[in-house]
Amino acid sequence: MHILVTNDDGVLAPGLLALAQEMRTLGEVTVLAPDRNWSASGHVKTMERPLRVKETRLADGAPALACDGAPSDCVALALLGVVKKKIDLVVSGINPNANIGHDVTYSGTVTAAMEAVINRVPGIAFSLDSKPGHGELDYGPAARVARRVAARVLEQGLPGGVLLNVNVPCLRDEEIKTSLVTRQGLRVYRDALDERKDPRGRTYYWIGGDFPTGVDEAGTDFGALTAGHVSITPLQLDLTATSMLDRLQKWDWA
Amino acid sequence: MHILVTNDDGVLAPGLLALAQEMRTLGEVTVLAPDRNWSASGHVKTMERPLRVKETRLADGAPALACDGAPSDCVALALLGVVKKKIDLVVSGINPNANIGHDVTYSGTVTAAMEAVINRVPGIAFSLDSKPGHGELDYGPAARVARRVAARVLEQGLPGGVLLNVNVPCLRDEEIKTSLVTRQGLRVYRDALDERKDPRGRTYYWIGGDFPTGVDEAGTDFGALTAGHVSITPLQLDLTATSMLDRLQKWDWA
Repeated sequence: MHILVTNDDGVLAPGLLALAQEMRTLGEVTVLAPDRNWSASGHVKTMERPLRVKETRLADGAPALACDGAPSDCVALALLGVVKKKIDLVVSGINPNANIGHDVTYSGTVTAAMEAVINRVPGIAFSLDSKPGHGELDYGPAARVARRVAARVLEQGLPGGVLLNVNVPCLRDEEIKTSLVTRQGLRVYRDALDERKDPRGRTYYWIGGDFPTGVDEAGTDFGALTAGHVSITPLQLDLTATSMLDRLQKWDWA
Repeated sequence: MHILVTNDDGVLAPGLLALAQEMRTLGEVTVLAPDRNWSASGHVKTMERPLRVKETRLADGAPALACDGAPSDCVALALLGVVKKKIDLVVSGINPNANIGHDVTYSGTVTAAMEAVINRVPGIAFSLDSKPGHGELDYGPAARVARRVAARVLEQGLPGGVLLNVNVPCLRDEEIKTSLVTRQGLRVYRDALDERKDPRGRTYYWIGGDFPTGVDEAGTDFGALTAGHVSITPLQLDLTATSMLDRLQKWDWA
């Protein structure tokens, strides 16, 4: 099996190293990841400028490829032929913070897995539910969860148009509870406008505010994490709000 | 009613002008849009750098705000308080090309409407189904469709978590058939790797290839457009692949 590893924090991020090392126990690994951080960058297809791919090495000495595009560009380039050997699985992460609820369309980690699925290769996004100010993170437990999930996907496959979004509590191996299959929950963003003046007296804005929370509901990604479980959410690329179809058909569109 | 108009082609794009002009027949309009093209930029929340907002004017002399962020950043800034007056509806477009099938997570036009919905304001994305090489586009017919759709949404509202993705055939008013409520269809991308050497002999890559097509199926966005109808697709931000939940629960996750 040949596994492509990418992320949205940049090729040298420790979460990618931990993920790549565990994936090597399942098969051959190619790393092609952004050369910088692309958090909350969304699902990008870079068409206005060309992309570069450079050879580099991970901290353990393993070869890797660094690209100046977004995470989804990395996956697209790999699957379009920059990586010559057929890819059986794309894994993305490990992101240091959870990607749950409405995070999924913003997340470079998740949109990399979406790009795989659009190109008919199974994709899995992995994130660690650490909170700001945690200090140095141990990606080992989440990477070991990732190995188990990736092994299941390599055995069973995933139907077309479906990716897995996996979030792991920031706990020691023995503290992490069972893995729960969940639905996407509700994020509660607490963004606030932070208006400032630059040294020349001109206004600029930060999207500031507090770290997001979520609605703690059983059966959801946020609920599982809050209770110490691994959350495994199947996501689809068909966003149709089917429950609205009948209602909208009754509106007067003429 | 107070309507925010944005787009992903930049504040001076003719599609935005046509949309803003029609929206003025429904209420007060504020334009806050990117200062450059952000096509296929995805759902962005810019947090690594501050954002600037500058006063400008549309081609008809109306005041507008130009921001150096993504379309979704424009919507976030407006709703977080850069625009002081309460916003009742966010409309995005008119994009010169259709946003259908898997386009929706890439599309700056659609993700601007997603950002509105996340912030609990109804959002509608409008796109014109023109093909490459069409020459100068007449956004008038699509803008008149947009006015009718926006009027319905202002009357009826939309449930939380749902946006409308509206695509209009590139035809004259009298040639456009009825509006159909559709489900998201399947895009067929025809991307190809275009590998080149720069003047210094180093490799670079374009994501090249041919313009995408789609699966022509009745009831879908692509099917409606192909038959000359306006396509109105309700999209939701909950991407859970509910049909997979039971199946995944049977997998051995231990």
